[in-house]
Amino acid sequence: MIGNCKKKLGELLKEVKRKKPLVHHLTNYVTVNDCANVVLALGGSPVMADDRMEVAEMTALASSLVLNIGTLRSEGLTAMLLAGGKANKLGIPVILDPVGVGSTTSRTKAAKEILRQVKISVLRGNLAEIRVLAGLPPLTRGVDSPEDLGGGQEAAVGLARHYGCTVAVTGKLDIITDGSRTLYCENGHALLAKVTGTGCMTTSLVAAYCGVSDDCFCCAAAGVATMGLSGEKASRRLNSPLDLGTFRMELFNAVAGMKPEELAEGARIYE
Amino acid sequence: MIGNCKKKLGELLKEVKRKKPLVHHLTNYVTVNDCANVVLALGGSPVMADDRMEVAEMTALASSLVLNIGTLRSEGLTAMLLAGGKANKLGIPVILDPVGVGSTTSRTKAAKEILRQVKISVLRGNLAEIRVLAGLPPLTRGVDSPEDLGGGQEAAVGLARHYGCTVAVTGKLDIITDGSRTLYCENGHALLAKVTGTGCMTTSLVAAYCGVSDDCFCCAAAGVATMGLSGEKASRRLNSPLDLGTFRMELFNAVAGMKPEELAEGARIYE
Amino acid sequence: MIGNCKKKLGELLKEVKRKKPLVHHLTNYVTVNDCANVVLALGGSPVMADDRMEVAEMTALASSLVLNIGTLRSEGLTAMLLAGGKANKLGIPVILDPVGVGSTTSRTKAAKEILRQVKISVLRGNLAEIRVLAGLPPLTRGVDSPEDLGGGQEAAVGLARHYGCTVAVTGKLDIITDGSRTLYCENGHALLAKVTGTGCMTTSLVAAYCGVSDDCFCCAAAGVATMGLSGEKASRRLNSPLDLGTFRMELFNAVAGMKPEELAEGARIYE
Repeated sequence: MIGNCKKKLGELLKEVKRKKPLVHHLTNYVTVNDCANVVLALGGSPVMADDRMEVAEMTALASSLVLNIGTLRSEGLTAMLLAGGKANKLGIPVILDPVGVGSTTSRTKAAKEILRQVKISVLRGNLAEIRVLAGLPPLTRGVDSPEDLGGGQEAAVGLARHYGCTVAVTGKLDIITDGSRTLYCENGHALLAKVTGTGCMTTSLVAAYCGVSDDCFCCAAAGVATMGLSGEKASRRLNSPLDLGTFRMELFNAVAGMKPEELAEGARIYE
Repeated sequence: MIGNCKKKLGELLKEVKRKKPLVHHLTNYVTVNDCANVVLALGGSPVMADDRMEVAEMTALASSLVLNIGTLRSEGLTAMLLAGGKANKLGIPVILDPVGVGSTTSRTKAAKEILRQVKISVLRGNLAEIRVLAGLPPLTRGVDSPEDLGGGQEAAVGLARHYGCTVAVTGKLDIITDGSRTLYCENGHALLAKVTGTGCMTTSLVAAYCGVSDDCFCCAAAGVATMGLSGEKASRRLNSPLDLGTFRMELFNAVAGMKPEELAEGARIYE
Repeated sequence: MIGNCKKKLGELLKEVKRKKPLVHHLTNYVTVNDCANVVLALGGSPVMADDRMEVAEMTALASSLVLNIGTLRSEGLTAMLLAGGKANKLGIPVILDPVGVGSTTSRTKAAKEILRQVKISVLRGNLAEIRVLAGLPPLTRGVDSPEDLGGGQEAAVGLARHYGCTVAVTGKLDIITDGSRTLYCENGHALLAKVTGTGCMTTSLVAAYCGVSDDCFCCAAAGVATMGLSGEKASRRLNSPLDLGTFRMELFNAVAGMKPEELAEGARIYE
């Protein structure tokens, strides 16, 4: 099954480039430009619209929908519920990024409200966020090393079963699970945590893949592996190991230049 | 007439660098940073302010006004009408970018409401957007090749006459018309469509030129040619043909380094 | 005293890298991505959240708070007052960037309302903004040369005494004063004024330093010197003197790569 998933990655990337899925984003204003550019770089087509007068209509045109709560306001939550409802009705996959959930009461409440009202296909977060949604006590900041998975896997499996979705926990080691199958992805680079928006962009990549295939589990793996492998490629282009500006630019070069066979071969995915 | 326009391009760029026009933007949150940076790169001075308490007062300080509906919300429309009304009263040129018009009912309604209440100097959109505003049936996505102008010219001429403005349709071949004169601009590069914001930035460049000259027709040509030529220059700096990150950075280098004579000579404009 | 401040810069930078202060931003949507990335580049951790339901709670988690009024709307002012009030109650330093104050009535009113209700640790603005807040007549645009300090120093000292805060006026020559002590910083490069967000980013850097030390006066100097020195470094990496795209990227490289001893030695600070 999982061997199939690894082999499927190249095919999924080809499909994105062929079908150019329209990825509708309701997202934060911090990293929105990066999300648009990364979807374009992969081969998809991004659209950002969040006025409640038009969100449902825009969602109806899309191949997938991103709900990212990074800078959510109350009117934004209404818009997300409208867009999510429309997506569910039409069978359009919804990818949720619960940015910063657990840091404030209203943010946690908003994320849970979305999960309660909208059927999510993929939930993508970091370890701290996934733990909070699973009802585990909050982490001290900075704990997401591969040595200390901090209950991430159990939390992810539990959430995946509870919500009937795929959960992707990204960190030094990425975990992708649909509740019965679990994959680990080892791709990535430490600098990805030093540039804002790499998590949000991973979510957008997952959404682009979900726009061309019903296999959310493999699509989540594809998005996570694409970002991780691109981070590795970008890091090899630096003159100095802390060139964060160059790294950020090279990340877009790497996503745009990623070939299907390169992704399939470079993805370090195992059970 | 048009020969004059081509010759005038260098002069217009010199004027932007000399007068540093203040370009007030009511624009979307996806590409706003790029719009600010491209106006600075050309030699102008950008300002972004959209609270209805201050928009009219800010517009009064500006040399030109951009209304870009990329992520319009209802309160944003109110602000645009206030800013547009003030600009009209003071004779400040208004440049409209009807981003995504036709994709949703409320977006189309908003664009038409702006066109009904505000006298526009230049309307800048892609073929799909211009067709919608002209009342033609919507295009399938992706149709804007030079072979198939898809009724763009007739739509543009019709709109220009109806609203008494200059219309610039950008795509593989750009069309600029004021209803009686029509120019074509062949500059550009395919990668411009793979980076978000290049359309919005073209609108901002047109606005910067309109801030220093009453000749909106030539200013529209200048903005369109500057972006197209900059895309060509940027594409020649790439190590790999899909380096979208590098291309985006080089685009700003190209606009900032564009010399008046280089623009005048490099612009491939014809009747 | 000031000699101590110059010597202290390296120590402050080390502390940022060691403590990774969480810098909460209520800021504009034009340069917000740059502010997040510059805080990460220095070694801090940025968070942006501005919904009034959560701002106070988020502020309580932070090491410092940035209030930047670049694209302020009325609901944003409410959020800033809530966040500022919470910060004051908890002794978290507040750094105010009164972007564009003086350009419109409502903007000036908002900045003064913040200063009236919130105890500010550092006020960072350009000469025009600082003059307006000090009640001096507005400047013609573009006057901030080192030859003509335009009353900036008197205004800054007056404001620092009135509000009991540190004031940092940035321009060709930067002035930092707490009302009794005054420092000048000569670092910087002309291109910093040709890229949007360098002022906002300076404010965010000051905030990151304020997140690790109570010495707001030296922290303001550290933030200002870090940006100025990074601009100098970035300018030396250009192939062509107007490569604004490259300059912007190299600015992040320079901040990220800045070593404590390099900052301490490179800062051109004097009394």
